[in-house]
Amino acid sequence: MEQITLKQMLLEDFSQERVALVEDMHPADVAEILIEVPLENQIRFIDTLPNDLAAMILQEMELNNEAEILSHLAPEKTAKILNQMYTDEAADLLAELPETEAWALIALMGDKGKKVKKLLAYESDTSGGLMATEFIAVYENQTLEQVLVLLREKAPSTESAYYIYVVSQEQRLVGVVSLRTLVTKPLETVVGDVMEQDVISAPVDLDQEEVARLFDKYGFLVLPVVDQAQRLLGVITVDDVLGVAEEEVTEDIHKAASILPMKEAYIDASIWTLFGKRIIWLLGLILVNLVSSGVIAAYEDILSSVIALTFFIPLLIDTGGNTGSQSATMVVRALVTGDVKMADWGKVLIKELLVGIFLGLVLGFAGVFLGTARGGTEVGLVVGLTMVAIVIFSNIIGMALPFILTKMRLDPAVASSPLITSICDATGLLIYFAIATRVFKF
Amino acid sequence: MEQITLKQMLLEDFSQERVALVEDMHPADVAEILIEVPLENQIRFIDTLPNDLAAMILQEMELNNEAEILSHLAPEKTAKILNQMYTDEAADLLAELPETEAWALIALMGDKGKKVKKLLAYESDTSGGLMATEFIAVYENQTLEQVLVLLREKAPSTESAYYIYVVSQEQRLVGVVSLRTLVTKPLETVVGDVMEQDVISAPVDLDQEEVARLFDKYGFLVLPVVDQAQRLLGVITVDDVLGVAEEEVTEDIHKAASILPMKEAYIDASIWTLFGKRIIWLLGLILVNLVSSGVIAAYEDILSSVIALTFFIPLLIDTGGNTGSQSATMVVRALVTGDVKMADWGKVLIKELLVGIFLGLVLGFAGVFLGTARGGTEVGLVVGLTMVAIVIFSNIIGMALPFILTKMRLDPAVASSPLITSICDATGLLIYFAIATRVFKF
Repeated sequence: MEQITLKQMLLEDFSQERVALVEDMHPADVAEILIEVPLENQIRFIDTLPNDLAAMILQEMELNNEAEILSHLAPEKTAKILNQMYTDEAADLLAELPETEAWALIALMGDKGKKVKKLLAYESDTSGGLMATEFIAVYENQTLEQVLVLLREKAPSTESAYYIYVVSQEQRLVGVVSLRTLVTKPLETVVGDVMEQDVISAPVDLDQEEVARLFDKYGFLVLPVVDQAQRLLGVITVDDVLGVAEEEVTEDIHKAASILPMKEAYIDASIWTLFGKRIIWLLGLILVNLVSSGVIAAYEDILSSVIALTFFIPLLIDTGGNTGSQSATMVVRALVTGDVKMADWGKVLIKELLVGIFLGLVLGFAGVFLGTARGGTEVGLVVGLTMVAIVIFSNIIGMALPFILTKMRLDPAVASSPLITSICDATGLLIYFAIATRVFKF
Repeated sequence: MEQITLKQMLLEDFSQERVALVEDMHPADVAEILIEVPLENQIRFIDTLPNDLAAMILQEMELNNEAEILSHLAPEKTAKILNQMYTDEAADLLAELPETEAWALIALMGDKGKKVKKLLAYESDTSGGLMATEFIAVYENQTLEQVLVLLREKAPSTESAYYIYVVSQEQRLVGVVSLRTLVTKPLETVVGDVMEQDVISAPVDLDQEEVARLFDKYGFLVLPVVDQAQRLLGVITVDDVLGVAEEEVTEDIHKAASILPMKEAYIDASIWTLFGKRIIWLLGLILVNLVSSGVIAAYEDILSSVIALTFFIPLLIDTGGNTGSQSATMVVRALVTGDVKMADWGKVLIKELLVGIFLGLVLGFAGVFLGTARGGTEVGLVVGLTMVAIVIFSNIIGMALPFILTKMRLDPAVASSPLITSICDATGLLIYFAIATRVFKF
């Protein structure tokens, strides 16, 4: 009900009622509806909202949508909205805008602008690019009561008050106190007595993949970021790395289809980027396919006398490629998730050998049937035997290549479906003609 | 240093020093080292630790490793360790053990055993299966000071004290107070005045994918779970759904290689499961490949007179399949992440048409060169022209199929690399022979 009403209002424009309605809704729900109305309605709507509410709703949208709306507002209004956002969100957003526009806005933002400017100096795919500067730091000799007083003053503008960091006089990170400790220990306790020492922190230039791995391993909600002298610079919250994980998965999925990693989202990538990320693999795979051409050329004689053998080339090599793709995909993913370790290779080999034999027997029967139907019993025999051999062999190639690549310290994802398909094709043809020459006594 | 020392100690067994060393380390780091030593050392080590420390370290391990260690300890010890775990972790672990063993342990666990038993009754892939029963609930008329007192009593045994839930006399969920609000508002404030109403909660039977989507959309750390009468039953924390996201990604990656979704991790899956998840697609794809066989059979005459045309069958159909796999993979992933919407189909079509033309031209030149080298200028012309046409066409098939499947309310992931390859092969052969019959005037 609520949602239909808001959408109607956004389309028909009843400014005051809208604001009241929106205040009671979750910003993520408002953002979801907002994105469905025309851009000019989005702009008018954000323009009429109080700055803090506008900031909360915009932060739930995709960066490019946010940037598009803000670039249509008066710079003074945009600067005020940016001042209501967390520093890391504001920095990400400003990075989306044309440079001159961004610098003008930073100048209008005052103190917060200076903080954001500092964040923009870090590489976007490092700890520095992910962190926000909103955190609470206290000294070891303060009492929990003093900390609580500080929190009551500062917390409303703090992205995460779940952890309170403890720093030395030189601002070096020496400990952490969780909000839970804070509310469960007596008020007169001194911070130094209850803080957790050995805080795990990220260096400011740590790659974002490593940051995501730290969150995953330790189950953190927040991770502090420090410079080389261990001085506390900012904090990364778990929601900042969820996007990183999604980017990593997209990269893995693309690799499995022989597409080179790209920084942009598909919709933002230029035609040249898409072309460049694909052509190198496609050309490389042609070289592998030349082996297949060579194999066929070498067996030209038997093909011209038993032309029916040609009919089954796509069937046999495709089935081999598909089988190999399946086992390669399973093993690559299991290695990435840590579900299978390098030491498990023997176990996986036996497993895939058995699975391959069963798959080969079933598909081999299908091959005998199809071959006989179209080319007679001898062709049926050749196709059936080839099918069994190709399936077992391709299954092992697909399983083994990821292990071999990892052993060679290469990315196992190079064992992509297209590469496995091309390799299985060439070996499959060799098997096919080896069996055919024996059966037809060529 | 620390890590080498612990590993040595685990192998050489100095019980007392080990415990002291481990107390200062993060449980995730201890777990990582522990998994590298032989099982009997793991068992002896866990057996010598205090129960709470043992529980913390075990919770950082994979479920199957945890279960293996615990099944070698005395049931009384295991029950004590389980009692130190969160209810959801204990339930997951008991579900891994043989049923009679699990029931015996639950009986030994006392009160907590009863709670865990209730959790085990929920389907493992629903909210109920993910939730823990550790939460803090207060009434609307309590003051923040009373809540703080309650927290100081209860929090140490609570999985997440980040949110305090507000319930009515009938235990129905009516609001939520964040720990931040608690520490930033005056102590005499009444809960009802500062609580957030309209709490977003998950019904106890909600599918885990939907649960993960709620966390992602709203950026929650904790999500309350309610029954049909809105009574609060438990809470799900964000780390419980990280595993769900990983399972979903594995499913997506498997689908892209034509493997049916499976519940078990690869290493735990039986040979029959692996066989079953793969044979259905492989058999189905053979049917698609029969079209390719049919096409070749129909053009038997031209093949037997220009046998060189056979050499390029794998090269051409593989390149077509690879191109189609690339565009299908990109579009499927972009649709899944929401990066591309259904309404963008026109934009994507134009993009892929242009990318396909450029890819086709480059690969076409390679085709002319290779064809001429092995079969003369006429074959070179046929191979080159076919390459251009196949690449452009396959690229569009790969791009369009995910949109069409989504429109038909089917999973776009069905447009897997193997299916696209098989479809592109059949159409590619048709293009090949159509061009060949014209060039050779057959």
